Amino acid sequence: MKYKFNPPKRILMGPGPSDAHPKVLKAMATPLIGHLDPHFVMMMDEVKAMVQQTFLTKNKLTFVVSAPGSAGMETCLVNLLEPGDECIICVNGVFGGRMVQIAERIGARVHQIDVEWGKVTTTAQMKKALKQCPKPKLVALVHAETSTGALQPLKEISDLVHNANSLLMVDAVTSYCGVELKVDEWGIDAIYTGTQKNLSAPPGLSPVSFSKRAEKVLDKRKTPVQSWFLDLSLVKNYWQGAKRAYHHTAPVSSVYALHKALGLVLDEGLENRWKRHQEVHQYLKKGLEKLGFSYLVKPTHRLPNLNSVYLPKQVNNEAKLRRQLLDDYNIEVGGGLGAFAGKIWRIGIMGESCTKNHVNMLIGALEDLL
Amino acid sequence: MKYKFNPPKRILMGPGPSDAHPKVLKAMATPLIGHLDPHFVMMMDEVKAMVQQTFLTKNKLTFVVSAPGSAGMETCLVNLLEPGDECIICVNGVFGGRMVQIAERIGARVHQIDVEWGKVTTTAQMKKALKQCPKPKLVALVHAETSTGALQPLKEISDLVHNANSLLMVDAVTSYCGVELKVDEWGIDAIYTGTQKNLSAPPGLSPVSFSKRAEKVLDKRKTPVQSWFLDLSLVKNYWQGAKRAYHHTAPVSSVYALHKALGLVLDEGLENRWKRHQEVHQYLKKGLEKLGFSYLVKPTHRLPNLNSVYLPKQVNNEAKLRRQLLDDYNIEVGGGLGAFAGKIWRIGIMGESCTKNHVNMLIGALEDLL
Repeated sequence: MKYKFNPPKRILMGPGPSDAHPKVLKAMATPLIGHLDPHFVMMMDEVKAMVQQTFLTKNKLTFVVSAPGSAGMETCLVNLLEPGDECIICVNGVFGGRMVQIAERIGARVHQIDVEWGKVTTTAQMKKALKQCPKPKLVALVHAETSTGALQPLKEISDLVHNANSLLMVDAVTSYCGVELKVDEWGIDAIYTGTQKNLSAPPGLSPVSFSKRAEKVLDKRKTPVQSWFLDLSLVKNYWQGAKRAYHHTAPVSSVYALHKALGLVLDEGLENRWKRHQEVHQYLKKGLEKLGFSYLVKPTHRLPNLNSVYLPKQVNNEAKLRRQLLDDYNIEVGGGLGAFAGKIWRIGIMGESCTKNHVNMLIGALEDLL
Repeated sequence: MKYKFNPPKRILMGPGPSDAHPKVLKAMATPLIGHLDPHFVMMMDEVKAMVQQTFLTKNKLTFVVSAPGSAGMETCLVNLLEPGDECIICVNGVFGGRMVQIAERIGARVHQIDVEWGKVTTTAQMKKALKQCPKPKLVALVHAETSTGALQPLKEISDLVHNANSLLMVDAVTSYCGVELKVDEWGIDAIYTGTQKNLSAPPGLSPVSFSKRAEKVLDKRKTPVQSWFLDLSLVKNYWQGAKRAYHHTAPVSSVYALHKALGLVLDEGLENRWKRHQEVHQYLKKGLEKLGFSYLVKPTHRLPNLNSVYLPKQVNNEAKLRRQLLDDYNIEVGGGLGAFAGKIWRIGIMGESCTKNHVNMLIGALEDLL
């Protein structure tokens, strides 16, 4: 036995994965059944219904991509955009930038709204972009930018987008099940998320949903979707309809875990869960500010569950402190990405990691180390 | 609690997933650690080493795609082919056909060798194809065609392919860890597989490996890879090198399970495992033929672990019998795909499902039902 792996017990307070609930972990260990087993198909229907409930949508085309959130992002873009299509993408962090990269690989004509990292796209910026590109096929925004902790207001922008007869696409990886998110009420046409943030399931799947407007656009495609694996016209025959045609082998265990995690969210209640994330955020904020941390994002657009903070002045080496936290206390927090690498920390209080006990462990450890 | 799921206990003898080992299931339930945690990175290195050992390769560019086997197939094709590139793809079942669909979506010029389903591509057919297309960038074959149970000899074809200065790409989803497969000795330049067949881990990941020749082709690309998620030039920075740059969030739990499953394969020994699949195949074959089943594929090219068989003459409705097996005995076998739908069964004895006890359960149940 040359290869042995005994993972340490961590307290996950970074940008994800978050701590998984023991019941969700237990679900992962359930013996496998086939991906076309009638019982598995029943469970897929339940998962679909629970994803609809947690997205607050009645969208029929709602299912789960068999790969992490980035593949959900690619699924939305490669299905909705064809070469030559115009789109507007708002970039205020890593994930907006990633959408641009994917859209460009499709051959779409991308109009980029560049927003200072840590800030959000304003309606004024959107109006200006829609003047320069009045008929985009799609406008994409990141609801909760994981690289900065900024929370993008969507309702007003949604009206602008629909007045331009365009589709609204939203990245909800870090907002889903942690902060207010109302797909139908806000008129979101395409949305994707991940499982390893506020949902507290293991990473590996990406719930997605498409409005009727988006379905019409899918039906009118002139070219095949460039990805076979992510082609909705094929995948949807596995996730809906009577036939359940084989497309790929679904990650059975991960769907078990997702089913359990969604059930726990609905047991708690979506609004209670949003409230919990706000309350624990206030508790964390108090502790962090007392220690000299300061927030990157201004209060009105601050994500409660992902706290992007500058370190206290006396800390010269954030990476060293972060490593001490990991080695001595088993607590993981995230470092900065891109322009913020080495400059900020990203402290996640998501799902099962969103408790006052988590905050007390972190603040206590930091008091000790600083 | 509206949503409850109590999966039945199944005996998995279809084309995959196969039964997972209890230790592998237990690994799935291990509490999560971060995908950039130094301990996780150490485990990725161990996984990489074990994938190299099980592929019998020293290829440096060896890692695991964070999605099922079909995404592994797409990874190989979208990275190695660019629009306009010529390739030869051998089609003797569903999965060869899938490769053609993906290559066409890339804009490659596909020369298809059409082989009767259940048979394999001969060296004569390959020579003929190489006359018509003497300088293909890539030649792709399915080592073990899951839709028919045919086992493709590769060694002689490999020589032909390399004499044409072309890359040999192989689908090893159903052969990996169950039948002889020697990546370096056979000169395979790009290979992908799945986790849910002979490896007996849950579905959701796709180990892949690329030769130095293939790496050179990757380095010389003129266009960006059309898929961001599957772009090796990005993914490899997460799986190798000192920096471990964030690309996407790896499916942590599935990698735990893969680590454990690979360890079990190496504990058993690759050759012992190949031998076990052969022995149990002979045992199954005897039982099936006694009941009136007959094999689709001739003995020389018959896959031991996936037994494609015509049903005994007295069976009018294969689907009904298959359902009885599932409902009354909790045994899953696979039906036919494509041209063989309703005509054959695909009986898998893979990994943990490859025991004489499994065979006895199946044969006993069939004796009872027929």
